[in-house]
Amino acid sequence: MQKSMDEFALIDTYFKNPANESSPLIAIGIGDDAACMNIPEGKQLLVTTDTLVNNVHFLNHWDAYDIAWKALMVNLSDIAAMGGQASFASLALTLPKADPHWLERFSEGLFAGLHAYQVKLIGGDITKGPLCITITMHGFIDEGKAIRRQGAKPGDSIWVSGSIGGAALAVSMLQEATTIEAQDKESLMQLLLKPKPRFDLSAILQGYASAAIDISDGLGADLEHICKASKVGASVYVHAVPAHALVKKYYKNDAAYFALEGGDDYELCFTVPDTKKRAFEQALKRAALSCYCIGEIQEPLGFRVLTEENTICSYHPRGYTHF
Amino acid sequence: MQKSMDEFALIDTYFKNPANESSPLIAIGIGDDAACMNIPEGKQLLVTTDTLVNNVHFLNHWDAYDIAWKALMVNLSDIAAMGGQASFASLALTLPKADPHWLERFSEGLFAGLHAYQVKLIGGDITKGPLCITITMHGFIDEGKAIRRQGAKPGDSIWVSGSIGGAALAVSMLQEATTIEAQDKESLMQLLLKPKPRFDLSAILQGYASAAIDISDGLGADLEHICKASKVGASVYVHAVPAHALVKKYYKNDAAYFALEGGDDYELCFTVPDTKKRAFEQALKRAALSCYCIGEIQEPLGFRVLTEENTICSYHPRGYTHF
Repeated sequence: MQKSMDEFALIDTYFKNPANESSPLIAIGIGDDAACMNIPEGKQLLVTTDTLVNNVHFLNHWDAYDIAWKALMVNLSDIAAMGGQASFASLALTLPKADPHWLERFSEGLFAGLHAYQVKLIGGDITKGPLCITITMHGFIDEGKAIRRQGAKPGDSIWVSGSIGGAALAVSMLQEATTIEAQDKESLMQLLLKPKPRFDLSAILQGYASAAIDISDGLGADLEHICKASKVGASVYVHAVPAHALVKKYYKNDAAYFALEGGDDYELCFTVPDTKKRAFEQALKRAALSCYCIGEIQEPLGFRVLTEENTICSYHPRGYTHF
Repeated sequence: MQKSMDEFALIDTYFKNPANESSPLIAIGIGDDAACMNIPEGKQLLVTTDTLVNNVHFLNHWDAYDIAWKALMVNLSDIAAMGGQASFASLALTLPKADPHWLERFSEGLFAGLHAYQVKLIGGDITKGPLCITITMHGFIDEGKAIRRQGAKPGDSIWVSGSIGGAALAVSMLQEATTIEAQDKESLMQLLLKPKPRFDLSAILQGYASAAIDISDGLGADLEHICKASKVGASVYVHAVPAHALVKKYYKNDAAYFALEGGDDYELCFTVPDTKKRAFEQALKRAALSCYCIGEIQEPLGFRVLTEENTICSYHPRGYTHF
């Protein structure tokens, strides 16, 4: 018979892990009214919060391992987009019931993700209610080195860190808006379930990028956030948008537009001043990383696309919005 | 006609407030992938997360001003319980719909609370889903000065910072488990809606308390948390438990037990070594604050009460649990 657990027992059973807590950063970890952290000198603290809601950001029947993993990764991606290093996190978990199997899988996914990115869980809250996960992620960055959304200047080139649109195609598959062949289904789901925060790139970006954002709402919408924050416009070369191979397969000539509008990729979009472009390309090569130059920041406000027929069109990026 | 807003417009309209963001602590505030904070030298960072769920921690028809206020106060209380000073917070708000009236009241309550306790809102997330509010509160404390749950020693006196049980009586009224006279209803609701984080006391506690906790789950349950963390037992004098006047009115001889078991008061429960007791009492007097000595920490594990008939009974505190 399953003994029923209160939230204190749940925390002890599923969210306490001695290996997780041993760190010179943590003076007081899980289990007090608040955690108490030692902050390294000369560092600024980065703080970001992202919530995943059942049947909005994930589906109820997904493996809880994947749900925890994704909740962590979308938060880590925000720290990467600032050029920072992730360090510690708190977790607010609202659960309809204390299902031991679900909690075990969630815990496994969470601690696997924490371990993979060397992040410590320092506390949180468990409450009863409709399934919902909020993580507040903390990271560090050298003083004054954070890469903001504002900072892009006319003439800067616009870059994206990997092929995009795949996660949106997976969502389209789940919504039955696109019919996907059986052999592609699993790879698509992996793109949606396992985004990779681009810490490999963000360390390099610090020296070169004038602005950066992670692509959660869609490349177009997120580039527009950079433009608004920087008070500039942008022109994007449609042929250069790195649509994922599966997006090209299913959306052919429309692949670039699909990729511009689809969110949930968690690649980075960033801008590089012309004077640093060559050095940046060399740094990428040294690190064996690929990025794609997809356009240029321009003085006239607004968002334009240069089509494959070399015509310039005004374009209003649609990204994901909740309301 | 109401123009529909996406979450970016909601943030701009209801959660950006220039006065809120001007602080030497904030290098980058609301509106980027992450906030970037300057951390004062010689301070440790306190971090706590608390979630309020619709129809669990508050009722759907409550004024959103009160919901925001309470969400903030329960988090602030955790910082006070550590002996710290609150500083900045992030907000994760999950909403079924973008109701302008609700959002306006929520925003008013939130910023009123932030202003009252000089806390800055630095970021967060707005998502669509069942109503749920998670705040991650950050505070500072001088290195090594945090008051933990562990630290209570046999012989320490046990204290509580104010009269208790009132919020639980309000819950009992809402659940129609206790019939309350019309003239008492509003005062009771205020006890539930407007808990006061005890920062006035926590500054004093730093010099005297061996352990502390805020009373969110119930005095008995929270004192038991101190005992478990400190690996000690406790004996409580029932006659000394400061039950709220309204609890005494409605529960008469059972008032102390009701007060021991009722949560949501957000007073502090703490322990003071015998050697510091007199000095602590003098410090209280100087600060014109009242606290109540309600028992003694003892070596034998377990929780005992000394009844008004001077008999000692073993007692298992029941507090609020979600599962």
